[in-house]
Amino acid sequence: MDPKQIIKEIKEKQDNIKSVIFVGCGASKADLYPAKYFLDNNAKNLRVSHFTANEFNYATPVAVDETAIVITASLGGTTPETVEATAKAKAMGAHVISLTRCVNSPIANNADYTIYHRFAESYSAKLEKMGYALELAVEILNQYEGYEYYEDMKTGFSKIYDLADKAAKSVVSDAKKFAQEYKDAPIIYVMSSGATHEVAYATSICLMMEMQWINSGTFHSGEFFHGPFEIVDKDVPFILLMNDGRTRKIDSRALTFLKRFEAKTTVIDALDYGLSSVISNNVVDYFNPMLITAVFRVYAEELSYVRQHPLTKRRYMWKLEY
Amino acid sequence: MDPKQIIKEIKEKQDNIKSVIFVGCGASKADLYPAKYFLDNNAKNLRVSHFTANEFNYATPVAVDETAIVITASLGGTTPETVEATAKAKAMGAHVISLTRCVNSPIANNADYTIYHRFAESYSAKLEKMGYALELAVEILNQYEGYEYYEDMKTGFSKIYDLADKAAKSVVSDAKKFAQEYKDAPIIYVMSSGATHEVAYATSICLMMEMQWINSGTFHSGEFFHGPFEIVDKDVPFILLMNDGRTRKIDSRALTFLKRFEAKTTVIDALDYGLSSVISNNVVDYFNPMLITAVFRVYAEELSYVRQHPLTKRRYMWKLEY
Repeated sequence: MDPKQIIKEIKEKQDNIKSVIFVGCGASKADLYPAKYFLDNNAKNLRVSHFTANEFNYATPVAVDETAIVITASLGGTTPETVEATAKAKAMGAHVISLTRCVNSPIANNADYTIYHRFAESYSAKLEKMGYALELAVEILNQYEGYEYYEDMKTGFSKIYDLADKAAKSVVSDAKKFAQEYKDAPIIYVMSSGATHEVAYATSICLMMEMQWINSGTFHSGEFFHGPFEIVDKDVPFILLMNDGRTRKIDSRALTFLKRFEAKTTVIDALDYGLSSVISNNVVDYFNPMLITAVFRVYAEELSYVRQHPLTKRRYMWKLEY
Repeated sequence: MDPKQIIKEIKEKQDNIKSVIFVGCGASKADLYPAKYFLDNNAKNLRVSHFTANEFNYATPVAVDETAIVITASLGGTTPETVEATAKAKAMGAHVISLTRCVNSPIANNADYTIYHRFAESYSAKLEKMGYALELAVEILNQYEGYEYYEDMKTGFSKIYDLADKAAKSVVSDAKKFAQEYKDAPIIYVMSSGATHEVAYATSICLMMEMQWINSGTFHSGEFFHGPFEIVDKDVPFILLMNDGRTRKIDSRALTFLKRFEAKTTVIDALDYGLSSVISNNVVDYFNPMLITAVFRVYAEELSYVRQHPLTKRRYMWKLEY
């Protein structure tokens, strides 16, 4: 269902929405972050929260009632914690929208509205979950408070998927180089800022730890200077996801430091793929996560080939109950 | 100045507060998290945000105006990003409260109100920054929306400092054992949930990476099952900060998994130190971070002694410009 239409229908039922609450687990939680970040930055009245699902289930915010929109996401639609959160939010009277790729999955059956996204079909299809969440955030803001750059966002959505696919296809040789250089790394740190903060998080906890069993840590590139940077030394491995937008200065300050002390540094820079040449500066910040996610996916794939460790290989997930 | 009085004075000037925004860097950012978490969980109308200072400076939220209270923290009061954020928030018309231990420091001079806390005098003195931030959050909620368990929180504040000091003094032998077992660990993961989530974060990025130059990663113990747990194997080092309260089940699920696969596991459990025997179950969640911070400090000190690496030793901070 179309994000604009969903929010229009909710508004017809409830003109007084106070809170927007994003709930997911792991990569699906991280995929909701750009939407949360957008509202955090641009709303004047709407409350915004973002929880891992069991946090929502066990310490449910008092704001969950008919004045709340709860947006949940689960790739296969069966993540138990997220299914529970979806049902709980609905039972408490919230307007619940789920994002999943699986029709008739438990998460979809527990929600008021569901947006189905694609996933494995292409690099850009993998971005649809993140993109639809962001579109929902933009619609909520525009319909409830108004949003000056709404048309710029619409233009952005019309460009980003093609741009991301094109960028992903252009980086294979860089990604192969990265894979050779990092294949034996004992640990890999990942950082970014702005709307891309949780792309760094998902890269660390999912692509590195979950899918490659590589030790990893992650933090905001602004926080880098307030603790983590003391770990920097020659050849310590870092991945820096650089934004094209207002927080670029934060990322580039981190890059300067990494280069100065000869850390092993790989940069994925949205500027290299022309993000701000097709998307307005008014809104470019919010499209970095999608572009960078597509590009880094290729890096992760090449790493998995060189290490002969498929991204789908697991020790515990899908193998046992926990 | 007294938190209750500060909020009373702000309310006399501005009855329509919409947003509460917490801003800091590193450990000072993390120390604001319990206050942010409290409002996230208990407010129905107040917007709540939490930023590392340069994120606030470069991508300043549109909500920063005379309807916002901005709370900033910096131990020495000179952190450049936080000083800038404090000045910026004030220039934009927000009501700005700073937390620092240094009288007449730049952060204090840029704020409308300052609360001075102690720091090195005792384990509990180190908790005052976190405690005052939480008291401010409680006062804001109670004075602007009302809060059912206000008296329980007041009782909690009257008990927590003594309890934390007592707990810290009781753990020296356990801490020595931890130090022996972890002194050569190639990496140490730290996790928690609830209000203690960013105590885990600060333990990882400050106590481990910054102060011991030990590789580290951190995540919410609910997120553990959605990525990070694939790194678990026999003897992989973890620290689990267990809460006494609503999110305990999340932490104990992680513990069960760590034990099942024989990870090297150290647990700091608020239950062991009698938190809920002196603080009401209605509010116990919010006092875990203070107790656990005090206890783990002893562990970090013992680790630093065994490794002959003082907690104050730095490669870059205080040594060069960056």
